[in-house]
Amino acid sequence: MGSLEAERTTVGWAARDSSGILSPYTYNLRSTGPEDVYIKVLNCGICHSDLHQIKNELGQSNYPMVAGHEVVGEVLEVGSDVTKFKVGDVVGVGLLVGCCRNCNPCKTENEQYCNKKIWSYNDTYSDGKPTQGGFAKSLVADQKFVVNIPEGMEPEQVAPLLCAGVTIYSPLRHFGLDVSGLRGGILGLGGVGHMGVKIAKAMGHHITVISSSDKKRQEALEDIGADEYLVSSDVTKMQEAMDSMDYIIDTIPVFHPLEPYLSLLKLDGKLILMGVINTPLQFVSPLVMLGRKTITGSFVGSMKEMEEMLEFCKEKGLKSMIEVVKMDYINEAFERLEKNDVRYRFVVDVAGSNLDQ
Amino acid sequence: MGSLEAERTTVGWAARDSSGILSPYTYNLRSTGPEDVYIKVLNCGICHSDLHQIKNELGQSNYPMVAGHEVVGEVLEVGSDVTKFKVGDVVGVGLLVGCCRNCNPCKTENEQYCNKKIWSYNDTYSDGKPTQGGFAKSLVADQKFVVNIPEGMEPEQVAPLLCAGVTIYSPLRHFGLDVSGLRGGILGLGGVGHMGVKIAKAMGHHITVISSSDKKRQEALEDIGADEYLVSSDVTKMQEAMDSMDYIIDTIPVFHPLEPYLSLLKLDGKLILMGVINTPLQFVSPLVMLGRKTITGSFVGSMKEMEEMLEFCKEKGLKSMIEVVKMDYINEAFERLEKNDVRYRFVVDVAGSNLDQ
Repeated sequence: MGSLEAERTTVGWAARDSSGILSPYTYNLRSTGPEDVYIKVLNCGICHSDLHQIKNELGQSNYPMVAGHEVVGEVLEVGSDVTKFKVGDVVGVGLLVGCCRNCNPCKTENEQYCNKKIWSYNDTYSDGKPTQGGFAKSLVADQKFVVNIPEGMEPEQVAPLLCAGVTIYSPLRHFGLDVSGLRGGILGLGGVGHMGVKIAKAMGHHITVISSSDKKRQEALEDIGADEYLVSSDVTKMQEAMDSMDYIIDTIPVFHPLEPYLSLLKLDGKLILMGVINTPLQFVSPLVMLGRKTITGSFVGSMKEMEEMLEFCKEKGLKSMIEVVKMDYINEAFERLEKNDVRYRFVVDVAGSNLDQ
Repeated sequence: MGSLEAERTTVGWAARDSSGILSPYTYNLRSTGPEDVYIKVLNCGICHSDLHQIKNELGQSNYPMVAGHEVVGEVLEVGSDVTKFKVGDVVGVGLLVGCCRNCNPCKTENEQYCNKKIWSYNDTYSDGKPTQGGFAKSLVADQKFVVNIPEGMEPEQVAPLLCAGVTIYSPLRHFGLDVSGLRGGILGLGGVGHMGVKIAKAMGHHITVISSSDKKRQEALEDIGADEYLVSSDVTKMQEAMDSMDYIIDTIPVFHPLEPYLSLLKLDGKLILMGVINTPLQFVSPLVMLGRKTITGSFVGSMKEMEEMLEFCKEKGLKSMIEVVKMDYINEAFERLEKNDVRYRFVVDVAGSNLDQ
């Protein structure tokens, strides 16, 4: 029958219903299994998809839900078969915490595309219990889904890289766009978009930020370092920019026309979608055929790419632009995120917050 | 002022208006310039896009129009700077007869994507005169857009390769799909689709023909050599085939949903569109993102790919499946093509027809 191990409890801030309002919630964590790492959360970024989830905007939310998937923490305990980590290490956990390990994507280090992947929250773990995310004092994760944070990187700076950063890095790498001299477009300047400019610039690209209004021109050019700024409603400038870009990373999370952006692409150019949009997107086939253009998309990145991306950001000295808040501000932070009122990512200082209040 | 050279006349069968009915038409051909090849037409295939053009279904038709862009002929005369061809050679001309030679596509042997490409009919040549196609006794073409037909290939068999064949070969080659062991789908079994099955099978692929009805099952499997046949309305079979294909070549020339076919693709699978469809096609972004799938398209092929494709077909002994007709049957042939009543390509025996009647 085995011994009945005492499970640990932890405290997270959970949404209880589709109002999406978070409040303290005490729940159990599994004991540290042989492959597991028990982690004290230091920081956790707030991603736009957290907002979708806590408000049940994708229609698949289970409550209570502790969101948060840009987690940086300190290792408190490791399982007997854990070799990659030791107590005291600073580590990261992203959007996924499990996969089948047998399918073709799993066998080719593309585990993010496994059909049986397990999300770091709002999912069911292999033990049958709900997964809960990083807006919590602690969590337990399989070592395969834990990454070492390179020495010298600051935990709160790293948090957004674990989702926004790898989301940009992975397609640039996969589609062979990680070479210097390319001309790229970043459509939408939020959490993912601002890291897009920084990472693509560090790869040696000429980057144009494309936006629906002129509002972010100064910050895009001066603060983030884009080369050009293009307003999508400016017909003349859009016309001038036709046939000029090797790729566009499209971070817009709502319905929008694709054709103006397809026209900006050169022969063999790629439009890479990042936004989960359940309203059908549209295009006419000649616009794709007559330039052999590609419409594709990408979903976070593999653990291998996560490691590479962190090394790349360390080497290039890349930093996310963040607003650090305490946990008691998180509901306000979500409200502001909904209005795009953040430059460019909220990061919760979890270890420095009182979660029990 | 230079000498006034006598221009040659020729006779083609031209559409005069959007009825699309063809009748004999006498017109001038330019003299054989230094880079030109003067060609007696032997055979010319009938492609579905000819039907669009003669009936002004794309809204850009100019009359009188001599269509036909799968032309096999015999060289009657070569210009002073022509080195690739000599009198008596059997040669081919496809969809294009000119390009700018200076743009990036032209400089990278992708001249079919030049924005100033000149179509072999219903266009204006660099001398300001209308271009006219292959349903004619003869034509004059720049040597860059003429290809040698390898010895031993029969002219009427080769004609459909010059458009349908290269249209299939080019994307398989360009997207790195010309390796053995892949699983592909061919959506639609017309002129392009049947060559798709043959060329992809010759590359060592497992090929599934996907069709809206069961009608072509036997011919697909027995006559053309497909491995499987999938009816798109068969929900169970479509479900079973999910996540199984490396690519699908989509030859359907009218609006259709993309999502059922995107679902059939594996991780990194490619949906390659071949049909000019001006009604917007639709898809939801997660279906693309969560398998890093690609929607793309391709447009005929380069002259270099045309040469490669002919060598490939010769080496593999590939033959198109055709119905050879005389010119006086061409209006009936177009009527039957409109009803998909052809297995799988009409080829006009131009040299064996009386065009003057």
